[in-house]
Amino acid sequence: MSKPSIPKGTRDFGPRVMARRNWMFDVMRAAFERFGFLPIETPAMENLSTLTGKYGEEGDKLIFRILNNGDFLAKSDENALQQRDSKALIPSISKKALRYDLTVPFARFVVMSRNDLVFPFRRYAMANVWRGDRPGKGRYQEFTQCDADIIGTDSVLCELELIELFHEVLSTLNVPGFRIVLNDRRILTGLADVWSVGDRVADLLIALDKLDKIGAPGVDAELQTRGFNDAVRASVQDLIGITSLPTAHNQLDAVASILGDHESAVAGISDLRWLLQQAVKAGIPDAVLRFDVTLARGLDYYTGAIFEVRVDDAPVGSICGGGRYADLTGIFGWSGMSGVGISFGADRIYDVLEHFDAFPVDLEVSTDVLVCRLDEDESAVQNDLATLRAFRAVGWKSELYPEAAKLKKQLKFAADRRIPWVVLCGESEREQGMITLRNMVSGEQSILTIQAAIEAIQTDKS
Amino acid sequence: MSKPSIPKGTRDFGPRVMARRNWMFDVMRAAFERFGFLPIETPAMENLSTLTGKYGEEGDKLIFRILNNGDFLAKSDENALQQRDSKALIPSISKKALRYDLTVPFARFVVMSRNDLVFPFRRYAMANVWRGDRPGKGRYQEFTQCDADIIGTDSVLCELELIELFHEVLSTLNVPGFRIVLNDRRILTGLADVWSVGDRVADLLIALDKLDKIGAPGVDAELQTRGFNDAVRASVQDLIGITSLPTAHNQLDAVASILGDHESAVAGISDLRWLLQQAVKAGIPDAVLRFDVTLARGLDYYTGAIFEVRVDDAPVGSICGGGRYADLTGIFGWSGMSGVGISFGADRIYDVLEHFDAFPVDLEVSTDVLVCRLDEDESAVQNDLATLRAFRAVGWKSELYPEAAKLKKQLKFAADRRIPWVVLCGESEREQGMITLRNMVSGEQSILTIQAAIEAIQTDKS
Repeated sequence: MSKPSIPKGTRDFGPRVMARRNWMFDVMRAAFERFGFLPIETPAMENLSTLTGKYGEEGDKLIFRILNNGDFLAKSDENALQQRDSKALIPSISKKALRYDLTVPFARFVVMSRNDLVFPFRRYAMANVWRGDRPGKGRYQEFTQCDADIIGTDSVLCELELIELFHEVLSTLNVPGFRIVLNDRRILTGLADVWSVGDRVADLLIALDKLDKIGAPGVDAELQTRGFNDAVRASVQDLIGITSLPTAHNQLDAVASILGDHESAVAGISDLRWLLQQAVKAGIPDAVLRFDVTLARGLDYYTGAIFEVRVDDAPVGSICGGGRYADLTGIFGWSGMSGVGISFGADRIYDVLEHFDAFPVDLEVSTDVLVCRLDEDESAVQNDLATLRAFRAVGWKSELYPEAAKLKKQLKFAADRRIPWVVLCGESEREQGMITLRNMVSGEQSILTIQAAIEAIQTDKS
Repeated sequence: MSKPSIPKGTRDFGPRVMARRNWMFDVMRAAFERFGFLPIETPAMENLSTLTGKYGEEGDKLIFRILNNGDFLAKSDENALQQRDSKALIPSISKKALRYDLTVPFARFVVMSRNDLVFPFRRYAMANVWRGDRPGKGRYQEFTQCDADIIGTDSVLCELELIELFHEVLSTLNVPGFRIVLNDRRILTGLADVWSVGDRVADLLIALDKLDKIGAPGVDAELQTRGFNDAVRASVQDLIGITSLPTAHNQLDAVASILGDHESAVAGISDLRWLLQQAVKAGIPDAVLRFDVTLARGLDYYTGAIFEVRVDDAPVGSICGGGRYADLTGIFGWSGMSGVGISFGADRIYDVLEHFDAFPVDLEVSTDVLVCRLDEDESAVQNDLATLRAFRAVGWKSELYPEAAKLKKQLKFAADRRIPWVVLCGESEREQGMITLRNMVSGEQSILTIQAAIEAIQTDKS
């Protein structure tokens, strides 16, 4: 028998990690609901046709496809099979796939549920997504996204609310040194127009998007490979230079001077100025907010504001992202629904909090009371069970040791599990209708009624 | 563009359904933790080799396999490909699969984490599983299991605790007319021994397991097809007759008289007698508990007590199941770890509660306060945002209507969303530093300070 293992890029979460993850999710859920977002959930399995073509060519390659059940070859594309053409074969042997993000399923949901929803519709979703990325630091094949989106309005107030939501959640989670970075796709497409490469804006964005990883010279090389001329490459280097100007407003001024009167780009700049100003009024410290004209975000569907959250000196890349999409549901046949959304990368936030040792202490789910078993006979069992039920009835997390093992073994179990209270009840206690309550931290023990023991634990807990 | 859809047997959950599901999960989580169970989570994707062969031949067919990414045909089994042999091809084009239940992944987890766990180990898990079953009433391809297991002890106290947990959770969820049905695999294997078909006990169980669906004559036909002789078939019919005896103890007596001194079967009967007696002492009404000697449960790995929960007059089959497995981790190379576990079928419990209209009212997550926008100018926006933040700061779920649309439209939005409170703030309110608070139920409105409005809502809520 081979040693059991799990797929690369996936993880088991034990009780300690679960307690921390659940705390994070509780914080997010509470904030989402306080901001008026409603919960929805879509299936992990989507029809492959729903996902294909929505994430660019690179994204398509990373989608996990589910093999049709049964004799899948019987209905497969004979030609593709004979050519050994994996890509061409896929549609005939796989109808379903695992969701790649929560945004495309959200768009599909909105179109399918349009008659049941009240617009503008605010939804949140917290769920796993799957990507066949090469696993690495902060990069998993199965990970959790926590998304909030508003669809059915193009009001820039929504962008402001989402920036506030970033700040609220990340502050409450105690994420140290996070920066909310803003840009606007309209500025980037405006620059492409001004540089006369408007039809190749996608290539330009792909190159810019790599700045963090490959630096300014790397971007230049990438642009050259992609066939951009010297003038454009020089302009891009100038643009990157703008990011070193001291304030967001200086940088916006510099970008504005390049863009002249390009209408949509000017609107983008004006929205960003307003958002930066409003965010400060909302109590978000100036240092938390950044404008970065080189921020591109990979996904195709953004058309307006784009967001990313980075953490200073963190071991992972961005921990959150998002943006405005003028027509997300258009891909499913319902045009003109503008939306804006953000996504919290729960696993990366976890990694950051762990790296900085920033989790609250005492998060672990732990049993409060262990009832030990001293005697095997039926009346002792009855008594121990009654004691156990009395503690559970008042809400203490309680366990009965399942066997009348040696007391030393039972106490070691309590210590290993960090259970703070142990109940011992031998014949003499039973005769008196009492129990012995032992404090595992101090080692003190007293003989009490169950009611008095419950009160003693209550006093200690509060 | 084709109309968007989702795979058969999967579902979207809108806000109303989510509120109900989350309530169910909260009830279960609280009970699991009160009973001392600790949360764990394993990946949705397991290595295919972890799952294959664990669920019987029928189960294997229902596992969803994930196609290897990239040029999967390049490394595929050429022979299987040429033979068009789907089954033989699978291992070479699929390394991963979606989990089929939470028990096998739990066993794998225990083996891989054995050095970090304290035994006996109690874990709970609440997560989706996937099966390629034909979708139908109460049967989904993606559904949620909520499991509690205790591993590392064979104490029958664990069975008792799990029966109590069934009762606690299902009572709290207000499931009407549920019956906890008990049997023991040792009784069934004992009967097979007594009837001299001990080596064919699996076939016997498969036939018995269908009693609910095909009735006694169906079971008889099934046994005949499977080659059992007349004497065995007559004995099985007699056994089915035992289920109509008036009490569990009458039925146990009748079964005991067949089994004579078969050691393990007698131990099974004795445990069941004790469990039935103890469950009543734990306050579980007699009518809730049933012994059913024909209960077989499909899964291979059970060896002792088996459980099932059924609901009278429900539109679905069993809503919970479980049992004792003497050696679950043996399949992953660690022998002799006895465990016992139960599984709550969340989707079927949901269907039952919906069928009987038994959900609590007012579960829906709903926004408390909508701040309407009456004016477009900057000072009005500032004022509306400040009002919004004041309500959120005290914990009210609050939204700002994103556009200064016609008031009628904004009020209709509040009514459609069933938002109980609306805040209106025009120029005259702003001049006075006041707001108008409108109760959407009564239609009453008053001009108040924000603080007074917060207090008015508080009073109304409590």
